[in-house]
Amino acid sequence: MNDDLILLGHGSGGTLSHRLLDDLIIPALSGISPANQNDAAVLVAGDSRLAFTTDGYVVDPPVFPGGSIGSLSVHGTVNDLAMMGARPLWLSCGLIIEEGLERSLLASILADMRRAADEAAIQIVTGDTKVVPRGKADRIFITTSGVGVIEHPFSIHGSAARPGDRIILSGSLGDHGIAIMAAREGLPLDGLCSDSAPLWTLVTEMLDEGGAAVHLLRDPTRGGVATTLKELARQSAVTFTIDESALQIKPQVRGLCGILGLDPLYVANEGKLLACVAPEVAERVLARMHQHPQGQQAAIIGTVEAGEAGRVRMQTSVGGMRMIEMLAGEQLPRIC
Amino acid sequence: MNDDLILLGHGSGGTLSHRLLDDLIIPALSGISPANQNDAAVLVAGDSRLAFTTDGYVVDPPVFPGGSIGSLSVHGTVNDLAMMGARPLWLSCGLIIEEGLERSLLASILADMRRAADEAAIQIVTGDTKVVPRGKADRIFITTSGVGVIEHPFSIHGSAARPGDRIILSGSLGDHGIAIMAAREGLPLDGLCSDSAPLWTLVTEMLDEGGAAVHLLRDPTRGGVATTLKELARQSAVTFTIDESALQIKPQVRGLCGILGLDPLYVANEGKLLACVAPEVAERVLARMHQHPQGQQAAIIGTVEAGEAGRVRMQTSVGGMRMIEMLAGEQLPRIC
Repeated sequence: MNDDLILLGHGSGGTLSHRLLDDLIIPALSGISPANQNDAAVLVAGDSRLAFTTDGYVVDPPVFPGGSIGSLSVHGTVNDLAMMGARPLWLSCGLIIEEGLERSLLASILADMRRAADEAAIQIVTGDTKVVPRGKADRIFITTSGVGVIEHPFSIHGSAARPGDRIILSGSLGDHGIAIMAAREGLPLDGLCSDSAPLWTLVTEMLDEGGAAVHLLRDPTRGGVATTLKELARQSAVTFTIDESALQIKPQVRGLCGILGLDPLYVANEGKLLACVAPEVAERVLARMHQHPQGQQAAIIGTVEAGEAGRVRMQTSVGGMRMIEMLAGEQLPRIC
Repeated sequence: MNDDLILLGHGSGGTLSHRLLDDLIIPALSGISPANQNDAAVLVAGDSRLAFTTDGYVVDPPVFPGGSIGSLSVHGTVNDLAMMGARPLWLSCGLIIEEGLERSLLASILADMRRAADEAAIQIVTGDTKVVPRGKADRIFITTSGVGVIEHPFSIHGSAARPGDRIILSGSLGDHGIAIMAAREGLPLDGLCSDSAPLWTLVTEMLDEGGAAVHLLRDPTRGGVATTLKELARQSAVTFTIDESALQIKPQVRGLCGILGLDPLYVANEGKLLACVAPEVAERVLARMHQHPQGQQAAIIGTVEAGEAGRVRMQTSVGGMRMIEMLAGEQLPRIC
């Protein structure tokens, strides 16, 4: 391992990614403090509060069970806005295409983008297209940026979890990452699809029910639920205790994780959210989530405690207590 | 040539790019009509008018005389906002890095981004980093998106040129494209640098002097001044007549264009703008531009006429009239 080169693990969303961001990228570009790092930036323009975010998509393969790089590039950015409590309104689309891409594949990816954008009621308003020579990219990379409007007075962010809050997870773990890996490796999926989906309407239900008592929202993408919980416990300077028996893992995900040697807690999701919600509204918020297609399997998976800052521990099904750490290295390259 | 594959020329900014955009990408994603295609989208949020734009940067080499992919990725997006008359305020940074990139090169590119952003008074507020395996990208690609605010009541767009308007070009032709090509090919530059620079403060001077009489602004990047003029003449449904003797071409650019077999009219610029300005203010706007570092060599290069829509003709130095068409094919790959 050469310290002077960027490694695949630097894109994993785990420890190496955090180090690269904290030691180099964020100090160089913005100097935003870790406590203020969220899925989107909040901008004040006149009388409006806006959220602004960007994500690059390099998923391999570009078409997978349950979606494509086109739909994923819309859902991911819509969800980053939604996690700030912002209504997604406007999207940009930056394409980097490898020479030789089939026009029909491009057309189908763009159709997926449009369908996903229409479904999420976000408008694609601006874009750019670059083509690089064969061998200088891998078929297609898409970078989307989104702008949304924060229409409520609440402040939802990663440092807002409070002791006593209930931790809600909106559904099962690892569907996206495992669907991608299985598709890439030619393993049988047995009906498993990526969970890639827009989460804004689910968030509107949660905010409608819980209001200011919905303290924190975050989608557990790269690095999975484990890494995201660790990030949030650090950011909010609290301890999270989660209950393994409350986590839902599809049998196909469990089976493929066994074959691939992966822990579903660290596998990316693209249509799930974690929320920290004040205890007095948690059950009501949960009941509202159950009415929504993306929240039918939502469950309270744990509690926020005033313990050591940044600690995440899991009560295991067999009765022990397991400490949860961030993803180390690169478990799943090019998952999104 | 296989019609079913994407070619390098589809990224040239010329005829093939336009066809791909008009036949496939724009109808698929947005359906925005050609008359309404500008460097940025205009968004209305509460009492604010905002501009929103994105651009991908894949320039080869990533560091070149006069800048790097870092500074270029800021200037390009700042200028797309400025061409809508919007004050650039917020920038996003999406990095796609090839495994094995030297950390020191990444650090220097990010430092260039930050310096360029500070100079242009735009804040980098959000970002994303992906890493792809060796051989699946080319060192580094950067996609920036920008949000700016339109603080004046004027409407500056590509279909606003009116017969009688004077066409202003802010400086010499082709410096960026030729500096990149010479650096790539190892040709002697003889002091030539990319013209990559932010244009917002130049635009503020122009608007301050010309107000609503500044009808149209556009930066002639990929495809050069010729292709941009052709786009604008179509979009405004007018004829442009330009005067070759008013065009400024540095001797090094002329020399290298000769060696490389290129026409400087079709070579990309990254710190120049074209403007269509009402005749009664054109001289005053020009005088103000001359006071600005990026406008010292500004000149009136032609006139807008009520002729055939989309026609661009050039009065040549030897006395003839040359019809100007869009760039055909790929003159200069990966210039930005």
